[in-house]
Amino acid sequence: MKKLINAPEDVVREALAGVAAAHPELRVDLVNQIVVRAEAPRAGKVGLISGGGSGHEPLHGGFVGVGMLDAACPGEIFTSPVPDQILAATKAVESGAGVVHIVKNYTGDVLNFQMAAELATDDGVRVETVLVDDDVAVENSTWTAGRRGTTATLIVEKVAGAAAEEGQAIEAVAELGRRVNENSASFAVALTACTTPAAGKPGFDLPEDEMEVGVGIHGEPGRRREKLVSAKDIVQICLDAIQTAKPIGAGDRAIVIVNGLGGTPLIELYLVFGEVAAALRTAGVEIARSLVGNYVTSLDMAGMSVTVCRADDDIIRLWDAPVRTPALRWGG
Amino acid sequence: MKKLINAPEDVVREALAGVAAAHPELRVDLVNQIVVRAEAPRAGKVGLISGGGSGHEPLHGGFVGVGMLDAACPGEIFTSPVPDQILAATKAVESGAGVVHIVKNYTGDVLNFQMAAELATDDGVRVETVLVDDDVAVENSTWTAGRRGTTATLIVEKVAGAAAEEGQAIEAVAELGRRVNENSASFAVALTACTTPAAGKPGFDLPEDEMEVGVGIHGEPGRRREKLVSAKDIVQICLDAIQTAKPIGAGDRAIVIVNGLGGTPLIELYLVFGEVAAALRTAGVEIARSLVGNYVTSLDMAGMSVTVCRADDDIIRLWDAPVRTPALRWGG
Repeated sequence: MKKLINAPEDVVREALAGVAAAHPELRVDLVNQIVVRAEAPRAGKVGLISGGGSGHEPLHGGFVGVGMLDAACPGEIFTSPVPDQILAATKAVESGAGVVHIVKNYTGDVLNFQMAAELATDDGVRVETVLVDDDVAVENSTWTAGRRGTTATLIVEKVAGAAAEEGQAIEAVAELGRRVNENSASFAVALTACTTPAAGKPGFDLPEDEMEVGVGIHGEPGRRREKLVSAKDIVQICLDAIQTAKPIGAGDRAIVIVNGLGGTPLIELYLVFGEVAAALRTAGVEIARSLVGNYVTSLDMAGMSVTVCRADDDIIRLWDAPVRTPALRWGG
Repeated sequence: MKKLINAPEDVVREALAGVAAAHPELRVDLVNQIVVRAEAPRAGKVGLISGGGSGHEPLHGGFVGVGMLDAACPGEIFTSPVPDQILAATKAVESGAGVVHIVKNYTGDVLNFQMAAELATDDGVRVETVLVDDDVAVENSTWTAGRRGTTATLIVEKVAGAAAEEGQAIEAVAELGRRVNENSASFAVALTACTTPAAGKPGFDLPEDEMEVGVGIHGEPGRRREKLVSAKDIVQICLDAIQTAKPIGAGDRAIVIVNGLGGTPLIELYLVFGEVAAALRTAGVEIARSLVGNYVTSLDMAGMSVTVCRADDDIIRLWDAPVRTPALRWGG
């Protein structure tokens, strides 16, 4: 295993120390393993938190800040955060207006966030949960009942975060998050497996001439293995799956993300985006906004995912609202 | 070879088509292979361009925009842009105030930028060149007379770009760029080789338990091979080399970049930054500003570089000035 680490069991804590050093504008609680926006809680503002296993950076810690999350609670690598940790994050951002939990649909995350929500409720905090399950590759999987949650999480966090920032109430913030999720579909392709520090070797074997079609962000199996094809053909596979699950067509506008899984160079991601843009143009879909880069990764896995979110005026307005986080910044 | 591409010879052009689709605020000239800021040339503003081989994304195209470059001219992968291409970029941003060429010190780049500068001068354009040679690993190398230019290029582009944006004259803009370069030192370590689309296989062999200490951004040999050690020890190797070449100590302020070479997960880069911050704190150096992420890459190479730029008030003020590019945005 080749990694820039010290001991495998210290990776998450030591990386959080690096986040603290790099981003003095955030509060990093190394004991509870939570990353909190400096000015949280803010009176009257709905709190917004998310979390999940580490290894998907910059998700979620990289999206804490103005206009997005109030706190993130990273678990160990590919492991859900624990209920106490989620509870600590919830309380750190609660100002009386309630707290929205954004949860990717993996069984461990769902159970632990649910337990934390119950504990918070017992303490008088109102919690609403937005479950993200945008990955249309498989209906159930290794760690999931139902569809897996992947890159749409970023759009949910951005749009709900902007709504919370402008003072919308908890019902509206949660409803917007759910609306983004319902209108989003993602599909990923892996060219290589990833290696966790604890395992020290690739999570699965993938022959030199094959790709995993519909892979999950922990390397969970997708729909099938097949011979590696051109970027153009890979994009067609992704968009066909997306179109089948959540059709989008002439006159629709979309937020589109081409997301690297960690080990794929940016030049390839731009090339893929060019193919996605051409195909969507042919389908009559207007790409209203887009991102190209590493946003929801799978450690060092080579590959990428395409996310298409059908966007209405509200969603686009909130997407455009100012955001100031380590990994996403615009608008002042 | 596993890559998300179509034909190897089309990678750069097709990636540029993706850049055009993703960033409608930029003008991408697919014939000349140049990326230009929409509002260039702006009357009275010094033009700022850079370029070099592709494969180091987001350098340079990702740094075109308000407060940074006016244009970038990407060559083929790991290949200098040609003089005509550099000349086209120069003319696209010339408004009468002259054009600064920011050139990484590789023989091909130096010669081609020099030729383009002569052609531009013949056409009445004043050109100043800022040569970047911050990599302190080796004095001469495969493709270099003198030291190689790497991640300090980003700081040069940011600081000189801010100076040009606020209307400073060409001498002052170039002088600031040179000052940043003189005060910067970088050192890189590779855990794996990278694979160019044309070659289709890794550029060199690196045993499973070894690292290349002082590697160049094209995989050029560094100082030595040695057994892979802990992140803490790797950081010490990098900082020792930097301190020997350009000492920095108590009372100094620095802009520090921990830069991923492409294949290393962000969680590792943050862990490395934590070690760099701890070591510099011990040395009495104040990290005034920092970046952690993939900024000057080497395709899919695993590894990272540390850059330390001793920064005065001027440099920090210009670093903080607003920037709006695909890969770097802050301040409005």
